[in-house]
Amino acid sequence: MLAPKQHRFLILADGQFGPLTSKTANSCIRYFPERIVAVFDRTEAGKTVQQVLGFGGAIPVVGDFTRGLALGPSAVLIGIAPMGGQLPPEWRSWLKAALEQGLEIWSGLHTFIGDDPELGSLARARGVRIHDVRKPPPSLPIADGRAAEVEPYVILTVGSDCNVGKMTAQLQLRDELVRRGLRARFVATGQTGIFIEGWGIAVDAVVADFVAGAAEQLVLQGAADADVVLVEGQGSLIHPGYSGVTLGLLHGSCPDALILCHQATRDYIGDYHGREPWVRIPPLAELVEIYERAAAPVRATKVIGICLNTFDMTEPQARSAVARAAEETGLPATDPVRFGPGPLADAIVREALAAR
Amino acid sequence: MLAPKQHRFLILADGQFGPLTSKTANSCIRYFPERIVAVFDRTEAGKTVQQVLGFGGAIPVVGDFTRGLALGPSAVLIGIAPMGGQLPPEWRSWLKAALEQGLEIWSGLHTFIGDDPELGSLARARGVRIHDVRKPPPSLPIADGRAAEVEPYVILTVGSDCNVGKMTAQLQLRDELVRRGLRARFVATGQTGIFIEGWGIAVDAVVADFVAGAAEQLVLQGAADADVVLVEGQGSLIHPGYSGVTLGLLHGSCPDALILCHQATRDYIGDYHGREPWVRIPPLAELVEIYERAAAPVRATKVIGICLNTFDMTEPQARSAVARAAEETGLPATDPVRFGPGPLADAIVREALAAR
Repeated sequence: MLAPKQHRFLILADGQFGPLTSKTANSCIRYFPERIVAVFDRTEAGKTVQQVLGFGGAIPVVGDFTRGLALGPSAVLIGIAPMGGQLPPEWRSWLKAALEQGLEIWSGLHTFIGDDPELGSLARARGVRIHDVRKPPPSLPIADGRAAEVEPYVILTVGSDCNVGKMTAQLQLRDELVRRGLRARFVATGQTGIFIEGWGIAVDAVVADFVAGAAEQLVLQGAADADVVLVEGQGSLIHPGYSGVTLGLLHGSCPDALILCHQATRDYIGDYHGREPWVRIPPLAELVEIYERAAAPVRATKVIGICLNTFDMTEPQARSAVARAAEETGLPATDPVRFGPGPLADAIVREALAAR
Repeated sequence: MLAPKQHRFLILADGQFGPLTSKTANSCIRYFPERIVAVFDRTEAGKTVQQVLGFGGAIPVVGDFTRGLALGPSAVLIGIAPMGGQLPPEWRSWLKAALEQGLEIWSGLHTFIGDDPELGSLARARGVRIHDVRKPPPSLPIADGRAAEVEPYVILTVGSDCNVGKMTAQLQLRDELVRRGLRARFVATGQTGIFIEGWGIAVDAVVADFVAGAAEQLVLQGAADADVVLVEGQGSLIHPGYSGVTLGLLHGSCPDALILCHQATRDYIGDYHGREPWVRIPPLAELVEIYERAAAPVRATKVIGICLNTFDMTEPQARSAVARAAEETGLPATDPVRFGPGPLADAIVREALAAR
């Protein structure tokens, strides 16, 4: 069995590959393009990924699943959600063909492919693994505060909204801290993070009573042999749909410090575009207070830095947004992708030493 | 098929019936003793429920399941959780006997009895229903703010901790408001409430992403033909294990007002007795602020009254605790069981009228 980072994936994104329609596929392409053999989509067949997404280079888009299999992938990665949530009959035939060739299947769907009677038993018969990364482990604990007692310095990213860069910030920080010689561990709490690292728990798919317990278990796992544990945040305390997941993660992971992430041009929570703008994102200094106050009754923690996502700004705009965020909050700020995570890595090292 | 309130239950609590060990059984006995035929427990057989629990009157405890069935129940209610979570072989034989006699099974376990191959198919063959009240409905929505738009005045109970009287407060208020001629609906969000009312969703058993959506759906259901909707609260925003459920319920139900519940003698969150006291319960005025601030970014709401649980105090102690709570918060306060829910029912009517 291959380790996750050795896999070469064929991404299934038939009919939906595009900048706005294939979020899972796109994250994987952004984070590990070197592990992607091809994308299967009959609509965009013949183009390169770069031509469709604006990034991703020469990875081909193929319009024939069998041709995709012939390119030598070791696993199929489900890069889109099927309409209606059910597995379409065509998907079933593609996935059967993959399993029959001994390829693993990696999926982040809420519907578990391994529970499909036909595909599940075929996988068992062939001794091939179906990796439903959103499937929670069988017996999660109720949170018990043990995450507060681990040796390493634990940092959780929190956000103004979903999809503002909480995972990216931690991955950038991990690489920078490792470069500085620290044992920094990234802890994945969502499907893309699990695809990247090969382990973790999708805390949004856990039964509600066990979200904090799942976070605690992840911190304990991540803490082994680490100096710094970087927990991927989820959602936002002000998101009407997902705030419960965010609070469970905050209380269960007992972080020593928080990093607040925000997309600089976003004024309202983004998931409610169908209606008039609903939840306004408050100023950063107020968000800092919201997170610190929500954590305090269970375990005091503090925001030690700001990560801004400035992908849709010009460089001068981005620089001034970062400067404004630092001034507004009195905290180090950066766009960790555009300007590097240096100022936040400095802050983590400083705070972790002061906490000893 | 009988309506839930017409059922006569035989409670299964074998080996664990007692004041501290059979929480589900005890709640059912407290709330609908008239619907309980007998409790099955071989250890306490021969006693009355009163002798074991200190309440519950002459309901017999039987030591022979067949004798319990002979007393004429229409359903078996699982009143305890089996050790280890798995269905013990003895339970299986008892439940088979019940199903074979055409009795329904009502269960609040996290493990679903209807999913058991043997018991599930027996129930289907006999045309008898297994009611796993903790099983979430199949397709819950992501919360979308629709609960804010319902006509009736919506009230959610929130608490300093679990098990302080959030359900009891709403049931008492429902009865009082109905007595005053209002169409008041109780909305159950936990297993005992569902046993009592026959409908609802156990929000702690829902996949975390859908807790707020479940709360929204419940409010929409409860709002039909109602003047006032009384939503049963769960957990506490300062409970390390369950705070996520509480925040999801708060954001998803979009309540017009909150009632804060507290057990007057409790200083620390109660679920962490195994370790040194951990989360200290802050003063009531601070709890009011915690809840109002947590709700505000999604939808502003306010606490309009305090429900104190004073069961373990003398009457003079209880009166002074209630007076102190009112003074500390500037809000009407009562123990709705001991002193009646009158002051809070007054506050609800006043606020609901002012909101028109």
